Amino acid sequence: MKIGIVGLGLIGGSLGIDLRRLGHRVIGISRKKSTCIRACEMGAVDEADVEPSLIKDVDVAFICTPLGVMESVVEEIIPYLKPSAILTDVGSVKEPIVEAIGTVWTNYVGGHPMAGLSENGIDSAVANLFKGAPYVLTPTDATTPSECVSVVAEIARDLGSIVYTCSPSEHDRAVAWISHLPVFVSASLIEACLGETDESVLKLAKHLASSGFKDTSRVGSGNPELGVMMAVFNKVAILHSLGRYRETLDKLISRIENEEWEALGHGLDENQIARPEFLRLSVSEGE
Amino acid sequence: MKIGIVGLGLIGGSLGIDLRRLGHRVIGISRKKSTCIRACEMGAVDEADVEPSLIKDVDVAFICTPLGVMESVVEEIIPYLKPSAILTDVGSVKEPIVEAIGTVWTNYVGGHPMAGLSENGIDSAVANLFKGAPYVLTPTDATTPSECVSVVAEIARDLGSIVYTCSPSEHDRAVAWISHLPVFVSASLIEACLGETDESVLKLAKHLASSGFKDTSRVGSGNPELGVMMAVFNKVAILHSLGRYRETLDKLISRIENEEWEALGHGLDENQIARPEFLRLSVSEGE
Repeated sequence: MKIGIVGLGLIGGSLGIDLRRLGHRVIGISRKKSTCIRACEMGAVDEADVEPSLIKDVDVAFICTPLGVMESVVEEIIPYLKPSAILTDVGSVKEPIVEAIGTVWTNYVGGHPMAGLSENGIDSAVANLFKGAPYVLTPTDATTPSECVSVVAEIARDLGSIVYTCSPSEHDRAVAWISHLPVFVSASLIEACLGETDESVLKLAKHLASSGFKDTSRVGSGNPELGVMMAVFNKVAILHSLGRYRETLDKLISRIENEEWEALGHGLDENQIARPEFLRLSVSEGE
Repeated sequence: MKIGIVGLGLIGGSLGIDLRRLGHRVIGISRKKSTCIRACEMGAVDEADVEPSLIKDVDVAFICTPLGVMESVVEEIIPYLKPSAILTDVGSVKEPIVEAIGTVWTNYVGGHPMAGLSENGIDSAVANLFKGAPYVLTPTDATTPSECVSVVAEIARDLGSIVYTCSPSEHDRAVAWISHLPVFVSASLIEACLGETDESVLKLAKHLASSGFKDTSRVGSGNPELGVMMAVFNKVAILHSLGRYRETLDKLISRIENEEWEALGHGLDENQIARPEFLRLSVSEGE
């Protein structure tokens, strides 16, 4: 197939590397000429340009830009797409994106390959980024052509991903829990510690912090722009998760205040038992 | 020196291995005969017994039991200690322990070697557990003999630890931030996720959880008994940290509710900048 990739960063570039290896012809579109040149040099694309017209005869196009510009980028390329072209995106929030793109293009299915690295940009693109990772597809029962879902699912499986299918809302609520909530819980930990007003205690805390603090604070100090985009695009689900989290925290604080040690221990027991359920190896649920 | 270790678990056993290697004669006391035998077999002690009288002529005694029994264990051994013997402990909370032991023994200095493994018990004891780790000593200005602090500090440095000295209260407030707060923040994350009432969303969340959830939830699913002990012994400092954390979380929730994206991004920026200050290599501050 001839496949277009719009947005040549970590995800777009890594997709290109794998898709070319799978025998597809890959066309790249980027706003920056220098990124187009670098993507060609790296073998992430067969050709690339800043001109959206290059996309004109692709069979499938992946939108791999940041969430904030997906809608405008799609509007820019659709005049050049052939009517049978299948459009998909890799955005980490689905409901608003699916709503926006689904309205302007029929052969569209939202997608979210759940792979990433701490680096960004074309230079961080690598082969096999998606191998073994979940790849969520979010067709809307009413309007998404099943042919379109099948084609993108097959590509995702060829990449080595484990394909899950659900509604855009289910996706957004699930990632709010396990991907977005951890970011804000973790960020608040760092910020709260910085609020210590006794300088000697803050200094000592910085010296004594070790693996527990390191792990719990990691995702809260990631790309700030990405954190804001999560909140902007997944506001409702994130506020729901944060609200539940706050209730949980209040219950825990009240147990400590009232010295309800047995209840506190029981809660910690249950968490210890439950956590492995979130960390089992992903198993394909079919498509 | 002749050194006694009361409580032969991970910390007591690992201490014994290193102290023997450093040329000290190590006496072990444990409630269980089987632990005494195992500690001897492993070379963690020169001799060990369930009888506290074995401690009678040690120069230094390390109390390495769980926090909950330290006070009673000390009461059991002091009739056998020679008056010049130096007593120290390895408890992860200092104010109540220092208060309790300091009252019944003059030559006492509280300590906290900040090393650990996820395993417990004598079988998990290893050499060099304390190498490169902070070792906090908490003399009380008024009463702790300086000779006593010097002796324990020298042993800690011989173990390869980086020695910090502060008041029991400073210690407890610092570890509340970077060691105890992360446990409760992390535990609440798991518990909040389990509160999702839509079964399909909860199932999907469990399938999609990856490194972000894994890291942020790790310390919250540790030993529940240890979590309760932290809260029991460090209640005031933990409640203070949890209160500040909750205020920080409220501010973050309100920023998302009110779509104050710039302020949200600014906060995340500051966290990203601040986190490395908590993760620099520990540098000796002198003793």
